[in-house]
Amino acid sequence: MSQMQTPASQQLAIGVDIGGTNSTFGLVDHRGDIMYRGAISTSKYDNVTDYINALYEAVAPAIDQVGGTRMIHGMGIGAPNGNYYKGTIEYAPNLKWKGIIPFAELITEKFDLPCALTNDANAAAVGEMMYGAAKGMKDFIMITLGTGVGSGIVSNGSLILGHDGFAGELGHTIIIPNGRVHWGTNMAGSLETYCSATGVRLTALELLQKNPEVKSLMRDYKESELDSRVVYECAIAGDKLANEVYNVTGEILGKSLANFVMFSSPEAIILFGGLCKAGDLILKPTRTHMEANVLPIFQHKVKLIFSELKEADAAILGASALVWEIK
Amino acid sequence: MSQMQTPASQQLAIGVDIGGTNSTFGLVDHRGDIMYRGAISTSKYDNVTDYINALYEAVAPAIDQVGGTRMIHGMGIGAPNGNYYKGTIEYAPNLKWKGIIPFAELITEKFDLPCALTNDANAAAVGEMMYGAAKGMKDFIMITLGTGVGSGIVSNGSLILGHDGFAGELGHTIIIPNGRVHWGTNMAGSLETYCSATGVRLTALELLQKNPEVKSLMRDYKESELDSRVVYECAIAGDKLANEVYNVTGEILGKSLANFVMFSSPEAIILFGGLCKAGDLILKPTRTHMEANVLPIFQHKVKLIFSELKEADAAILGASALVWEIK
Repeated sequence: MSQMQTPASQQLAIGVDIGGTNSTFGLVDHRGDIMYRGAISTSKYDNVTDYINALYEAVAPAIDQVGGTRMIHGMGIGAPNGNYYKGTIEYAPNLKWKGIIPFAELITEKFDLPCALTNDANAAAVGEMMYGAAKGMKDFIMITLGTGVGSGIVSNGSLILGHDGFAGELGHTIIIPNGRVHWGTNMAGSLETYCSATGVRLTALELLQKNPEVKSLMRDYKESELDSRVVYECAIAGDKLANEVYNVTGEILGKSLANFVMFSSPEAIILFGGLCKAGDLILKPTRTHMEANVLPIFQHKVKLIFSELKEADAAILGASALVWEIK
Repeated sequence: MSQMQTPASQQLAIGVDIGGTNSTFGLVDHRGDIMYRGAISTSKYDNVTDYINALYEAVAPAIDQVGGTRMIHGMGIGAPNGNYYKGTIEYAPNLKWKGIIPFAELITEKFDLPCALTNDANAAAVGEMMYGAAKGMKDFIMITLGTGVGSGIVSNGSLILGHDGFAGELGHTIIIPNGRVHWGTNMAGSLETYCSATGVRLTALELLQKNPEVKSLMRDYKESELDSRVVYECAIAGDKLANEVYNVTGEILGKSLANFVMFSSPEAIILFGGLCKAGDLILKPTRTHMEANVLPIFQHKVKLIFSELKEADAAILGASALVWEIK
């Protein structure tokens, strides 16, 4: 790092969102404006060192353009199975780098910058707290409804990380004992088996099979084509079964949220990710069943809202926001 | 308060545990030694002012004996539906004082002492952190298995209170959707409907009814006599069905604990209250089902242990421990 100290308020933070296929990054100022953006492949690099070298090649020109590392406060990373305490990525099923990767350490060595790392859902929650719907809130839960179901929990202004840094795996909590078996974990009846994109697809297939007498636009698609996007399009076209898919999904999500409310009594639950495109189709049944399953003391108190961050930006903003916590 | 400042380290804290029938109190030093104890009736006083006057009459002689209020750092209260932020007791179903009671304020007026108040399970968790099995831990969950099921959750060294002070109602989280209806809340399938003393009794009655061909020592008791104590005695006498009651109870508790682990990733879960007398009868099935229902990342990491505080002392210690947080 440069010997000349630049005040943190004038510095930028680099946010990196590591996905299974691609990684995106951005240089972000204190207000959450993304000044430079870029992306590299994740899956192309079998070796984490090669990946970090490629990331360096992509990010270095942007660092130079803003005046070198003295203008950068640090690098924040959102990564699957990222551990905040240890700065590691541990046994991430969607990444090629196996075992425990000391990722933050490798970044610091290569970039000569401090690095903070957490899982992607936690990063999104921090982003929402700094720049989004949770601005000013000290207690909220962020639920990401995408390919999987992730969560980031903020209590009293801080992420709940747990004693080992792995807290907040709400997608894997059991909501239907002995229910649908998860394709990855083999556990039965977890939230993710129902309320992820894959879960929505499976619920649609189940409803079609259980109701052979009911006409549905969804029957015009091959099983391999029937995904959560198709369910959505059929639902807004007025298809009864497709709408029922959202009712079922919302009921299960709402019951899960009720349990989460009774755990940490958040001011708001913020929904994020692909499934949110369904808008009221998913929000209404979710809210109904959340309210019906909390104690009166919690009723009509918890805001159930969608994220205010653009999906493409949220992960970068969240990862960058981690940096401002670095002293 | 006295004009002469006594260093906090030499002061005592008054802990009061308000139960539906009786209230107990103690003067406690920094090490958790209870120096004076006493008790008054709770249910005798229809009016909260009369109750506080009676409490004052009972506690004042002890305060005088230790040198007056200058020797007392404050008063801590554990009460059903106690709200830490507001110092209120709100709509407590087991108390005669209805509505919202500004209890801490009333105490300060009467005793001229600062007062901190929270619910009984939160108080027990704080006591366990300062003097019991959770000493030195920053992340743990305390579950009280008594007449009801209560909980106190500590994350990063602080109680999770939520945005309104009512967090930690884990006894009311749903673990069996559409399951047994709760006698008080009317909600179906909550943890408390199964894993409280009342829940154990109901499970015993169900198993006796469902298995008319199975001999059981429990059949020697009238339905009105069959309580959780009888189930325990029959179980240790080797009764098969009574043992099965604990297996069922432990399975449901273990599954619930698995969900809690995936929420806040605690170092330990501490069990407290009457049901703990069953020892391994309840601990073994609970541990088995907890481990079977968490992601591998959490397996064999979470200590499942009993409280180290005497049941009669824990509530007083916990309530008194709140006082040391008062600045």
